[in-house]
Amino acid sequence: MTPKERAWRVADAPFQPGKLHHTETIYTLGNGYMGLRGTFEEGYPGAIVSTLVHGLYNHPAGELVPDLVNMPNPLPLTIEVDGERFGLDKGQVLGYARTLDLETAILSRGVLWRNSRGTIVAIEFERFTSLAVEELIVQRVSIRPLSGPCSITMAASIDGTQTNFGVTQWGSLTTSSESGAGHSPRIFADGLTAQSQYAVTVASTLLSSVGLVTASEENPLQPDLGVTVALERDQQAIFDKFSAICTSRRSDSPRIAATQILEAASARGFDMLRVAHCAEWAQYWHDSDIQIEGDEAAQRALRFATYHVLIAAPRHDEHVSIGAKTLSGPGYKGHVFWDTELFMLPILTFTQPKLARNLLMYRYHNLAGARHKAREAGFEGAMFPWESTDTGEETTPRWTNPDAEGKRIRIWTGDTEQHISTDIAYAVLQFWRWTGDDEFFVKYGAEIVLDTAVFWGTRAEYQAATDRFELRMQIGPDEYHENIDNSVFTNSMVRWHLGQALDVIAWLEAKHPAAAADLLTRLGIDSTRQDHWRRIIAKMYIPRDAEKGILEQFDGFFNLDPVSLAYWTPRVANMDYILGHEPTQHTKVIKQADVVMLMALLGDDVGTVEERRRNWDYYYPIVDHGSSLSPSTHAWVAARLGLDAEAYDLFMYAGSIDLEDAKGNVRDGIHGAASGGLWEAAVFGFSGLHLTNSEFKVDPRLPAHWRSMSFRIYFQGEQRMIKLIAGQPSG
Amino acid sequence: MTPKERAWRVADAPFQPGKLHHTETIYTLGNGYMGLRGTFEEGYPGAIVSTLVHGLYNHPAGELVPDLVNMPNPLPLTIEVDGERFGLDKGQVLGYARTLDLETAILSRGVLWRNSRGTIVAIEFERFTSLAVEELIVQRVSIRPLSGPCSITMAASIDGTQTNFGVTQWGSLTTSSESGAGHSPRIFADGLTAQSQYAVTVASTLLSSVGLVTASEENPLQPDLGVTVALERDQQAIFDKFSAICTSRRSDSPRIAATQILEAASARGFDMLRVAHCAEWAQYWHDSDIQIEGDEAAQRALRFATYHVLIAAPRHDEHVSIGAKTLSGPGYKGHVFWDTELFMLPILTFTQPKLARNLLMYRYHNLAGARHKAREAGFEGAMFPWESTDTGEETTPRWTNPDAEGKRIRIWTGDTEQHISTDIAYAVLQFWRWTGDDEFFVKYGAEIVLDTAVFWGTRAEYQAATDRFELRMQIGPDEYHENIDNSVFTNSMVRWHLGQALDVIAWLEAKHPAAAADLLTRLGIDSTRQDHWRRIIAKMYIPRDAEKGILEQFDGFFNLDPVSLAYWTPRVANMDYILGHEPTQHTKVIKQADVVMLMALLGDDVGTVEERRRNWDYYYPIVDHGSSLSPSTHAWVAARLGLDAEAYDLFMYAGSIDLEDAKGNVRDGIHGAASGGLWEAAVFGFSGLHLTNSEFKVDPRLPAHWRSMSFRIYFQGEQRMIKLIAGQPSG
Repeated sequence: MTPKERAWRVADAPFQPGKLHHTETIYTLGNGYMGLRGTFEEGYPGAIVSTLVHGLYNHPAGELVPDLVNMPNPLPLTIEVDGERFGLDKGQVLGYARTLDLETAILSRGVLWRNSRGTIVAIEFERFTSLAVEELIVQRVSIRPLSGPCSITMAASIDGTQTNFGVTQWGSLTTSSESGAGHSPRIFADGLTAQSQYAVTVASTLLSSVGLVTASEENPLQPDLGVTVALERDQQAIFDKFSAICTSRRSDSPRIAATQILEAASARGFDMLRVAHCAEWAQYWHDSDIQIEGDEAAQRALRFATYHVLIAAPRHDEHVSIGAKTLSGPGYKGHVFWDTELFMLPILTFTQPKLARNLLMYRYHNLAGARHKAREAGFEGAMFPWESTDTGEETTPRWTNPDAEGKRIRIWTGDTEQHISTDIAYAVLQFWRWTGDDEFFVKYGAEIVLDTAVFWGTRAEYQAATDRFELRMQIGPDEYHENIDNSVFTNSMVRWHLGQALDVIAWLEAKHPAAAADLLTRLGIDSTRQDHWRRIIAKMYIPRDAEKGILEQFDGFFNLDPVSLAYWTPRVANMDYILGHEPTQHTKVIKQADVVMLMALLGDDVGTVEERRRNWDYYYPIVDHGSSLSPSTHAWVAARLGLDAEAYDLFMYAGSIDLEDAKGNVRDGIHGAASGGLWEAAVFGFSGLHLTNSEFKVDPRLPAHWRSMSFRIYFQGEQRMIKLIAGQPSG
Repeated sequence: MTPKERAWRVADAPFQPGKLHHTETIYTLGNGYMGLRGTFEEGYPGAIVSTLVHGLYNHPAGELVPDLVNMPNPLPLTIEVDGERFGLDKGQVLGYARTLDLETAILSRGVLWRNSRGTIVAIEFERFTSLAVEELIVQRVSIRPLSGPCSITMAASIDGTQTNFGVTQWGSLTTSSESGAGHSPRIFADGLTAQSQYAVTVASTLLSSVGLVTASEENPLQPDLGVTVALERDQQAIFDKFSAICTSRRSDSPRIAATQILEAASARGFDMLRVAHCAEWAQYWHDSDIQIEGDEAAQRALRFATYHVLIAAPRHDEHVSIGAKTLSGPGYKGHVFWDTELFMLPILTFTQPKLARNLLMYRYHNLAGARHKAREAGFEGAMFPWESTDTGEETTPRWTNPDAEGKRIRIWTGDTEQHISTDIAYAVLQFWRWTGDDEFFVKYGAEIVLDTAVFWGTRAEYQAATDRFELRMQIGPDEYHENIDNSVFTNSMVRWHLGQALDVIAWLEAKHPAAAADLLTRLGIDSTRQDHWRRIIAKMYIPRDAEKGILEQFDGFFNLDPVSLAYWTPRVANMDYILGHEPTQHTKVIKQADVVMLMALLGDDVGTVEERRRNWDYYYPIVDHGSSLSPSTHAWVAARLGLDAEAYDLFMYAGSIDLEDAKGNVRDGIHGAASGGLWEAAVFGFSGLHLTNSEFKVDPRLPAHWRSMSFRIYFQGEQRMIKLIAGQPSG
């Protein structure tokens, strides 16, 4: 590989079975509509096959919460060489190389394979999820007999037996085929999800450069398109499989829609489809790439992270959002957390504002669910769910599944991790301030900011004894401590949020009086309520040790049992797994530092550099990075505090979580927040990009060995290029 | 990890069972006397345990050739936590991190482990093979109960059941223990190799910071030193295991020697032993490190490669040499090939000349075997064996072991891959010219150069019909073509060799006439013989296509069947494995390019840049890099030809062979020639270091993104520092 290829590619050769699940995840393809794990076309024992479509949830009977439906698998290509089935666990693998080209989002693989009779074939696979036609999956397989003539049987199927780890999502699922004049035969899986009643069609067609393709429904739920050809030595047979996944979320008849997509794809052909796809990706990278000179590993890690946010970001749908594990695996069942707004959204807000807008609109459209949650809990306004799916209702499970001994643990985040409502408001305001998209803000964004403020106004508890407002029973970003009182993160953010809400009202009234009047009326925000907010702002209790000048993460945190993380060296498992869920609550170990998160979001507002440094020095040693969100945030803040070595170390650690499987759990899916967080660490941390009044500025702290860092952002609707040269800041 | 640590460390966390054998090999420790694979102290299912000592060969009955004896394993530490045996395949691994610190050659590993009853312990392992006392292995294990008090049982044993994949090497092997006043108990394995009759003692002692160590011989051939202690929570128990491996190659009584080493080590203690070890390594790196600015991956790869040559290079023994797989695994049974002189030796010649001298002395001491081989084949002088062990006799197997169908293949290299005699002469001359070590050369080196020249003088065949000298039945570096006539590499090198021999004679006669007279008399080199050499030089046939200006690899090569390597894409297996051993001979595919190797060794002598480039263009596309020696040599020559992109790509490929297991066969051991070759590619390729008369010069072609490259070399006995800054050469 050339240096350029090294910086743009993730690759593996030869085949390492021990990395099966890791590579399945990191080679996931996607186009903002669907996500396909990097499983092998021909299958492999133990593979975790996953084909997910944004928004396509179902809540199966007997399960705690809804899950993203694992679609009928559109990838399978069964290849027989002289009657012997090809597989990496069979015959002799004489060659193997797999490459994910991040630049074009194309996954390719070559295999040189010898069957037990000595017949050697070269098989090349290529696939992409089209960025131009997002329901479309394009696959090509080329087969060349190398040792002599041979017979090849290819069966391209749809696997309708796919489940979510044994849980079936379908009320009905039928498979069928169509063979007609004027088109190559097609196969279909038509399903209706059991609870959510989404109609889904997965359809495939196969174009063969040789031989006649025929459809077969011999295998139940696994229809296939088969062709058998006799090939001469070095005669290349090319098979193009086009598949469409359509759902009733988009079209009245998914089957007709899928058929039309296959027709159009067949008419255009592989090469043209590829060109259109690559053109879209070229634009993506033009806008979103960060270029690093002097650090190939950091460069590749950043591109890999950017890739995974981009493939997960919905392009044409404002009713869906990105789950914590993107669409790359089964983890967290595709549920949407604060990870999206505070970690994955910024790269989009700054480089792909249209996509960021879609994600924020998802929250807007789900205000009903948030209002419902607030009402149920006895509050006004909008209280967003901790875990969100297609309905906007809270979908956090209340209990873990029972363990081997039948024990289950109460999950509190859906009840009391309430900061997400402010996180979403923060993201809306960040989007608005940087994009200057007043139209969005006036029509939608302001309502999110204000109705969540309404919630907080009713949520804050006045304590007469101390004449202050408090927030009890909370969970902050550090989830090792549940149902604590007065989270410094939440209290501070709520105070900030209410202040922003008042500013928004003033701005709306000045610039858009009619819209303001309408909105304030609808949300019931009168002057009394605003006065109440002012009182909360003035009297919000922020726990801190005045003497030491350190914020206290929550009431009583300073009195918890000290924990030395060095004591638990070397550690890969999270501390709560080691100590146990309940015992961890009584210790000072934190999953991620709420105070550091606060410093990341509010920066100077939290205090002077010296004050923030004091807080860092207190909290950093007790962070166990139990969350994959943690390292990048800490890298960002470390860079801002001039802790260059720590910043770089944390940045590279964040970059290794998925790429190197540093936490050993990538099999469940990409850590989307770690991906987005890496961009934040680079841009907010190393470049120090920030807003001052109506301008933006940088304040670079590049790692010492970087020669330069360049990136583009949109600012107030205009794209701007920022290039930072080592040692010399420039805007 | 800091950037500095990244550039000095090879590490893995969490534990990946799929990389077991790869990491066993790359984490090998050594000190030029012994090599210990990076297997786990506590064992692991399927582990390839290997403890090798230079020169300790044995030829077991029924085996084709001698093998380096797999010693009784001195590493085992069996740990029980509350009666439950610790292992990575048992209980819960809560943490795992392993690091080979290249700077100090210390392998460390931490494990956080929970047994089935919930007891958690932190276990830290450290080990090194002392560079100060080379028979000594130092291990430390620290155990701390973290969850509460617990009982720890530690058994430090020697595993005398070790074999070479089931083949026993011992005529006798007994184990025993000694417990006496005034010293901690010791255990011993005393063996006598069956055929070679080497006496070996492996001895261990265990120092415990808590509890009383007692010796046990309960397990046959696995004596152990046991201690059981009750530990409080957070009470650290430290166990130091010192082991010695002594052999009759060094001392009359290995057992007494081993006992003395253990006594001395126990008296000094772990910390002092570690200090002494690290001080030696600091000097190694001071002399041998190449520093790259601007390419962390290349920097780490170079250090990793340098490390593996240094740990394999004998420091105090001039009767042993480095096998193709160093002492890191079972591959090639520890046999010594040309890999040593042409790939591993240069880094030593230039940076550790004393070590280089040891390796050349190994060949000097084995001249008897080489003379024997020449005589047996009907020639005069010295004809070095293709595979060499402790006797200096040819030890290349004549046949492969039968495959499943009983087929075996004749191995010809021991008969006809004769260029090694000239390769050794080349290495002697390179050593002499750069070090200026006349004393070595006059006493030893000249005899190697001249007696191998005597061999060639009798080996070259005069063909009256064409009035030229030829060399038939040869194998060149490209071993895909056996028993060919007139290898362009061999013929050219022999011509060069005879010319050098005449120069050496002239120099000797001028500067050391007495020594010259003695040597020439002993070797029978009279003026007639010298005249014969001059005729050979004048009339040596060098196959080439005059019209195209391309050297022909051997007679008839241009007429072989063309092979397109692109046709066989993507390939990991070697082409001879794919096509079959015999069919490959009829094709133009080459394992490595003889002509490129020739250009590497003789540079300008092979032709102008244009001529060499023409040869490159012809041969490079047909090289399959079937040999791990190939990429680095090609990188070196590519750099010299100004093919910067190819040079860097090949350099990084060479660096990945062991570090990334790019060829998938590192389980058998380190590719020592790839390691040494990486240094050659950097120094001879990128820096262009070369000799001009009595000076040295550089002619840098650094990869475009490198900021600088610095290294030290010894030149004529003085150490010189060379720093190349990007874009500007400097000496």
